[in-house]
Amino acid sequence: MNHTSTPEILLDVGQRLFAERGYAASSVRDITSAGGANLGAVTYHFGSKDALYQAVLERALGPLRETIAATAQPTGPALDRIEAVLRAMFAYLGDHPELPRLIVQQLAAGTELPPVVAATMQANIGVMTGLIREGQRHGTIRKGDPQLLALSFGGQPIFLALIGHALKQAVGLDPTDPAARQALVDSVVTLVRAGLRSTKENTP
Amino acid sequence: MNHTSTPEILLDVGQRLFAERGYAASSVRDITSAGGANLGAVTYHFGSKDALYQAVLERALGPLRETIAATAQPTGPALDRIEAVLRAMFAYLGDHPELPRLIVQQLAAGTELPPVVAATMQANIGVMTGLIREGQRHGTIRKGDPQLLALSFGGQPIFLALIGHALKQAVGLDPTDPAARQALVDSVVTLVRAGLRSTKENTP
Repeated sequence: MNHTSTPEILLDVGQRLFAERGYAASSVRDITSAGGANLGAVTYHFGSKDALYQAVLERALGPLRETIAATAQPTGPALDRIEAVLRAMFAYLGDHPELPRLIVQQLAAGTELPPVVAATMQANIGVMTGLIREGQRHGTIRKGDPQLLALSFGGQPIFLALIGHALKQAVGLDPTDPAARQALVDSVVTLVRAGLRSTKENTP
Repeated sequence: MNHTSTPEILLDVGQRLFAERGYAASSVRDITSAGGANLGAVTYHFGSKDALYQAVLERALGPLRETIAATAQPTGPALDRIEAVLRAMFAYLGDHPELPRLIVQQLAAGTELPPVVAATMQANIGVMTGLIREGQRHGTIRKGDPQLLALSFGGQPIFLALIGHALKQAVGLDPTDPAARQALVDSVVTLVRAGLRSTKENTP
């Protein structure tokens, strides 16, 4: 019935267990057993649990990195491209609700980041910082350290995806409801555009 | 040498282990053993592991909730009080670096939130929403759903505290360095003020 290959099954199961329980609490035995594979399958196909984990992260983060880079690329006003990148991040995370859980454990652990997570953060912050610098050159974005400005809002899609479920319980806002989600994304985008825009009022 | 009481030791050790490993992976045996207490101490002093966990959360979140409420209270322009609340949140989280790790696992788990976490989120979002509504009444804050506006920036202190360590590795910004931290907080505050402010340019 199911023609998915064993490596793909291991990636799917690994991603689910790593997101639910964390890396340390997901054993090779848990993963192979949940995937209906034999105990040696992780070693055979990936080399080690850590290599499977890196592959899971790369499969989840690679397309996000590419989407952000591609969305930022076309010419056009920097603020419009920043808005497009934010919307693309929200859309990607909406389609991959497990992703924030998968990376936040690493972000929070206070230990060395997996290389693919560090590279993705670096690339994404770099893209946003570049767009801000460009807008500053053209006088459309306020003065200020461009990297700090990027960090001042760039994590909103990740944070809001992360706390989505909690928002529903705490304040009754359900980000899996398309209309509620759209209103939240629009609010973030409006606030960020106004916050970045260079105007007589907001120029220090 | 150490005159800390057993309940306080259990709260300290519980907080550290829950933050490091999560609730499920921290057993009563781990906690009592790390605290040098006997195995029955958690039950004796708190009733259960869950009750200890609730007490840990309340001890960590209660003062934050009170700080936010107190900071929001004085009269004065709404934007100034929003800025003060953001700065108070950054300061509290700077003094309690383990707090985001402690709560983010709950936020991310997708399961029912512990009551104290839900109540704290509700209270904090409520305070920020109230300040925005007040600024809108006075014409100093842009139009828009006040709760959505609050959610569009209110989590920044938590998210940035959560990824602080990762930022250092990914882009070389160390939020434990006071000057770097101050610059980041100032950047967030400036962006949020400009994003919320009602001006001819930013009124839709």
